Amino acid sequence: MQYRTHHCGELRIENVGQEARLSGWVQISREFGGLTFVDLRDRYGITQLVFNQEDDSALCDQARELGREFVIMVDGIVRERSNKNPNRDTGDVEIEVKKLSVLNASKVPPFTIEDESDGGDELRMKYRYLDMRRNPVKDKIIFRNKIAFETRKYLIEKSFTEVETPILIKSTPEGARDFVVPSRMNPGQFYALPQSPQTFKQILMIAGFDRYFQIVKCFRDEDLRADRQPEFTQIDCEMSFVSREDVLQTFEGMTKHLFREVIGQELADFPRMSYDQAMHDYGSDKPDLRFEMKFTHLNDVAKGKGFNVFDQAEAVIGICAKGQAANYSNKDINKLTDWVKRPQIGAKGLVYVKHNLDGTIKSGVGKFYSDEDLKEWLTAAGAEQGDMLLVLSGDQEATAKQLGELRLEMGRRMDLIKAGDFKPLWVLDFPLLEWDEDSGRFHAMHHPFTAPKHEDIERMKSGDHDAMKALRADAYDLVLNGAEIAGGSIRIHDRALQEKNFELLGFTEEEALAQFGFLLGAFEYGAPPHGGIAFGFDRLCAIMSGSTSIRDFIAFPKNNMGRDMMIDAPAGIADEQLVELSLKVTSE
Amino acid sequence: MQYRTHHCGELRIENVGQEARLSGWVQISREFGGLTFVDLRDRYGITQLVFNQEDDSALCDQARELGREFVIMVDGIVRERSNKNPNRDTGDVEIEVKKLSVLNASKVPPFTIEDESDGGDELRMKYRYLDMRRNPVKDKIIFRNKIAFETRKYLIEKSFTEVETPILIKSTPEGARDFVVPSRMNPGQFYALPQSPQTFKQILMIAGFDRYFQIVKCFRDEDLRADRQPEFTQIDCEMSFVSREDVLQTFEGMTKHLFREVIGQELADFPRMSYDQAMHDYGSDKPDLRFEMKFTHLNDVAKGKGFNVFDQAEAVIGICAKGQAANYSNKDINKLTDWVKRPQIGAKGLVYVKHNLDGTIKSGVGKFYSDEDLKEWLTAAGAEQGDMLLVLSGDQEATAKQLGELRLEMGRRMDLIKAGDFKPLWVLDFPLLEWDEDSGRFHAMHHPFTAPKHEDIERMKSGDHDAMKALRADAYDLVLNGAEIAGGSIRIHDRALQEKNFELLGFTEEEALAQFGFLLGAFEYGAPPHGGIAFGFDRLCAIMSGSTSIRDFIAFPKNNMGRDMMIDAPAGIADEQLVELSLKVTSE
Repeated sequence: MQYRTHHCGELRIENVGQEARLSGWVQISREFGGLTFVDLRDRYGITQLVFNQEDDSALCDQARELGREFVIMVDGIVRERSNKNPNRDTGDVEIEVKKLSVLNASKVPPFTIEDESDGGDELRMKYRYLDMRRNPVKDKIIFRNKIAFETRKYLIEKSFTEVETPILIKSTPEGARDFVVPSRMNPGQFYALPQSPQTFKQILMIAGFDRYFQIVKCFRDEDLRADRQPEFTQIDCEMSFVSREDVLQTFEGMTKHLFREVIGQELADFPRMSYDQAMHDYGSDKPDLRFEMKFTHLNDVAKGKGFNVFDQAEAVIGICAKGQAANYSNKDINKLTDWVKRPQIGAKGLVYVKHNLDGTIKSGVGKFYSDEDLKEWLTAAGAEQGDMLLVLSGDQEATAKQLGELRLEMGRRMDLIKAGDFKPLWVLDFPLLEWDEDSGRFHAMHHPFTAPKHEDIERMKSGDHDAMKALRADAYDLVLNGAEIAGGSIRIHDRALQEKNFELLGFTEEEALAQFGFLLGAFEYGAPPHGGIAFGFDRLCAIMSGSTSIRDFIAFPKNNMGRDMMIDAPAGIADEQLVELSLKVTSE
Repeated sequence: MQYRTHHCGELRIENVGQEARLSGWVQISREFGGLTFVDLRDRYGITQLVFNQEDDSALCDQARELGREFVIMVDGIVRERSNKNPNRDTGDVEIEVKKLSVLNASKVPPFTIEDESDGGDELRMKYRYLDMRRNPVKDKIIFRNKIAFETRKYLIEKSFTEVETPILIKSTPEGARDFVVPSRMNPGQFYALPQSPQTFKQILMIAGFDRYFQIVKCFRDEDLRADRQPEFTQIDCEMSFVSREDVLQTFEGMTKHLFREVIGQELADFPRMSYDQAMHDYGSDKPDLRFEMKFTHLNDVAKGKGFNVFDQAEAVIGICAKGQAANYSNKDINKLTDWVKRPQIGAKGLVYVKHNLDGTIKSGVGKFYSDEDLKEWLTAAGAEQGDMLLVLSGDQEATAKQLGELRLEMGRRMDLIKAGDFKPLWVLDFPLLEWDEDSGRFHAMHHPFTAPKHEDIERMKSGDHDAMKALRADAYDLVLNGAEIAGGSIRIHDRALQEKNFELLGFTEEEALAQFGFLLGAFEYGAPPHGGIAFGFDRLCAIMSGSTSIRDFIAFPKNNMGRDMMIDAPAGIADEQLVELSLKVTSE
């Protein structure tokens, strides 16, 4: 039994006159005079079938009963179409059908199987197998596979070995919450699903594998926000005998390779920026460089003129919205002020200075500042006639963050972000530790295995608390269009330094040993210098295809409650299963 | 900071005179007159370093303090060796060291890092990172990666798309035991880890993906036997609009590709055999065809001659051990009889017939049978002078199984299994259902989604109990050297037939809906005919490299108690974690 001689995207004008057998889904069927046309669809394309009432009325009647999404097999002759469809690869031909078999019927689908569907989110998730028949969804899954394969090609070519690390590992309280798996054979004991293969890839370096990678599922039991999934995929990588430069070169090369091979884009060398610089210029450690609009720090020119708000602020910072002076009425400014005062942004207010095209200067704080004063601001910000300055003030960190958000919003409003534009950036020299006031202890900014920069090692060992805050990590993020697509670091490979780091992070010696004893032990048997990086694979796919949502790039995503709507999981399990696992549910 | 200009497997005679920097592990160090030689090892090879007491005694002293597995970096000049080592790629050269830096020290490893190690299993599992520095272990993991990559290359070339299916799915009581994952956000509910992506790959066919594959982790909470792992890897595949022949051709092609590209072996076209034939000729559904020794069924010639044991037996079956008549003394025969009577085999006894080289016939049952009688047996078995017949009797099924084991044992003893010999075989037409006396119901021989052979569909719908036992499945196994390396089937794609199958397997309608409602529902929206296969990836790797244990091909295997000895998992979790999960441990 052969179901097809060709697929539905294959036939061309050269095939005219040939016999062909096709199988696929009925996309649409329409009647036109004595003819019935059926668009037959499979993964590869659509081919037009034609049934002629005059030639074979029984067959034609059979065709007229086909519903949308019926699965059929047809035999026929390829012939040239009179009205060709230039938008379709197979648009020059059609099949004059001689025989029709219905392989499977279909109920009427709950939403249309078209590029633009009328189905809501929940419905499309429940009937994911119908949603995936739509080109935009199908294409994204195929696109993902291409990126995965090109990743493997590139890395294997560079002597990386893909090694599968275990999924059933041990729970570690550090970081996000683990999913755990009760062990039936060891009552009261649990495995955990990995949040990342971090310790295993370091172990592989100690094992001498030199260059490791893995495209691997990771798991985090977090309260889900939009665009967070409990299981997600990483391109996880580690290299031995490397310094930061080796890692950056290798993965800049990989990223360029992916863009070249998958979407035909040549990326220029990636710029680099320190964490401090990024925070100073953009109020973000993942600045979107698709447009400029850098921060202008106005403390020197804006303070001490009697405007209380600024005088009491730690920071007065502005951005220059090019050519926007004429576009923002007072009403528009008020709306924008409301936007920055929303709780998600949290600014107290917004000050504008317009440098009008006629040379005049207008500002909401005009009564506190002379035109000369305001000109100083405009000059500092590089504003010209027609431009508008937007200024926020307050606590340094919060203000920078708020202005960073406003900058992105203005970029969107001013249409500065062009589709198909990709602006990668390495952000370097992150702080090693963050002080957390609530818990009164340090947190690792990257993770507890990140090495301090070489020149900071002695300072780290000194133990002085303030010195700790100033420590720089040998860590790096790859930012693309304002999203972090990869992050990594050179790792600690010395037991004493790792113990010191655990101590700074508030681990007792016993906790460190219980959780990471195997790694500390491994450091004592010839651990090489090593470092690595991990790409968020779902997000990389989304950004490379110009999309903002990762969910579309996952074949079977879960909803915001961590629920698979199609199979309806999670679900209750049998009482015997609980008994076997020595577990009892305490509340439902 | 650059740690190396070359790796340790790279330098050749052409490099003589060049400066080089190498980093790696001290494999061994030895003194010879005023010289100290150090073998420096990394993943790629070993390079000899030489330190000269006369040139730089301080440096030489430093070298003499290096212990095994120290991680060092050296600068020096490549020079030609006086006594070359032809067994090593780098054996023509050595590095005359000018500078030595210790990057990390090492304690004395608990076992030797040599191809043949003195470490026991438990110790090597605990220090897996040291075990993996040994070539035999390292090479197996790299070998595995090669097979994985070539698998992807072949399948993607054939228009397969690798799609990641979820790891957090729903528990189904059918089949082996699931690992479950409590859902914190849905108290009392659990995810399960997939035993295979079976239903998801069928859903992907219904979604129109046409050709799917995935190299994917699967999970089974079984009582572990040697060579079973709670997590294991499959090459999971599915195709639409295919009949059996399409699947066999595609994956025979893939297997040939892997053998050609990875180990340079050209495999001839794979023979095929029905399940019945395999059971009849070899007493096994996975016969090892590296040697012949087919069964001879002796009922016709051995029964009715007054030998009670045979007369009362359902089956009398023999194998012919070529040229073994002279090799087996009475004592040897007794030992062999003990071997078949061991509980693992379970035979009641063993009858031999020797056709001696001098033409005489000797048998333990000589008093029941004339030489003429026995000659009939020998003729039936194709035995010649010098050969020995070994005969078992009893219940048909059990006897065939026992004789199958004896056949394998004789193959080993007679050294008929040659290293590097690969004998693949497709076994076809398995029974659809197995009757289980204990539970009084049918079990699916392959799995509940397997289609009966086309010609058996009507019989299946009829519902007659005995007819059910005779149903053949459209299922196939790929056997290699006596091991099942892949199994698959054409699937049911019709809701009514699938419901019938669930009914035969003892599902109530409610159970079928609760567990597989989404699949039954999907069948109603245009499910195409489809089928697939799954390769046991760990085993495929083992067999292709001529090994019998899969554990060596897994980077971080678990022991027979499902425990990771290196990280010591599973382990207890914090009480707060249990509270968050609404769980209580009932016993420890």
